[in-house]
Amino acid sequence: MRNLSERGILTVVSGFSGSGKGTLMRELLKHYDCYVLSISATSRKPRPGEKEGESYFFKTREEFEEMIRKGELLEHAEYVGNYYGTPKKFVDEKLAEGKDVILEIEIDGAMQIRDKYPDALLVFVTPPDAKELRRRIESRGTEDKENIEKRMRRAEMESYGMAGYDYIVVNDDLEECTRLLHGIIQASHYRPEHQREFLDQIRKELKQED
Amino acid sequence: MRNLSERGILTVVSGFSGSGKGTLMRELLKHYDCYVLSISATSRKPRPGEKEGESYFFKTREEFEEMIRKGELLEHAEYVGNYYGTPKKFVDEKLAEGKDVILEIEIDGAMQIRDKYPDALLVFVTPPDAKELRRRIESRGTEDKENIEKRMRRAEMESYGMAGYDYIVVNDDLEECTRLLHGIIQASHYRPEHQREFLDQIRKELKQED
Repeated sequence: MRNLSERGILTVVSGFSGSGKGTLMRELLKHYDCYVLSISATSRKPRPGEKEGESYFFKTREEFEEMIRKGELLEHAEYVGNYYGTPKKFVDEKLAEGKDVILEIEIDGAMQIRDKYPDALLVFVTPPDAKELRRRIESRGTEDKENIEKRMRRAEMESYGMAGYDYIVVNDDLEECTRLLHGIIQASHYRPEHQREFLDQIRKELKQED
Repeated sequence: MRNLSERGILTVVSGFSGSGKGTLMRELLKHYDCYVLSISATSRKPRPGEKEGESYFFKTREEFEEMIRKGELLEHAEYVGNYYGTPKKFVDEKLAEGKDVILEIEIDGAMQIRDKYPDALLVFVTPPDAKELRRRIESRGTEDKENIEKRMRRAEMESYGMAGYDYIVVNDDLEECTRLLHGIIQASHYRPEHQREFLDQIRKELKQED
């Protein structure tokens, strides 16, 4: 039913640090082959297990600022003292190929994407409540006390931006949440802005029928 | 995951006469018990097999105009010489009970609903092409030649209104289309306007965490 020659859907997935959105993205990509995850550039240091060109493209602050100057980033933001950004070329190429591209980015970047790609789908992932959010951040074991409190305060601020997203998804049961996210993104293919070719075609046919 | 105490989703389903939307609605209601179909009032004469209070509430033109005057209709339109309208009370009651209410109405009525219920979901159902549309209208066998041409011309006009809907669904394979429509409506429960209680709650919790 879906017109496969059409452009892919650009989906922005944001969520509180500790919402489990990283795990959710891995599940989505594991179960469905229509998705491509955009790889961000960042100036933050790799965490244990993170690999260059897989988790992120790791850059120095100077290299990152060079990319900004050259206009090679779709969006960028500074967050807890580090730069994060989305290389533009990769996203545009994959969308043109008909792939559904996922950007896992913070709220500031999401709003920049909305301005540049009004057809983008914005999804916010949240744990069921604030206690669970704190539990997940603490259990990660990579953050000191000060950073945990920073992330909790950041979450409070972000909670005021959630309503600006197209969908709010509670990540309680991972499997259910993965299916739901897939359903939301696939439904988006049937929005009129993604059905332009079909609309033009049937209008032309109906005119000729007269 | 879904907050079941919340109000239901109001979905407007429109489509070309001959799009098969009636059959699609019956399939949707047969397979999923979260839906209630709103029953329209009309001044048109019953077709063979149509029953009062099931297919429509059949009214005389005078009775219908009385309902308009009393403000008992959510929307109404005149179409191929007959009135069609949606009794308001039933819809409001079912939404408050948390049921997802489906209105199967024409494009003019759909735009009236959008004004009164900005959160309503508007879905347009179409056959894959204009030839198939004509074939379906002709095979129905209830329309004379003049009415068939009227309906084809009407479809041409309506094709310019399709882009104003939230989703365009091609009714080619009935089973696939039923599943897709269900997915689109259920995704809508996760839009921020339907998650207000959750948003208020988690904001309050995050504030207290400080």
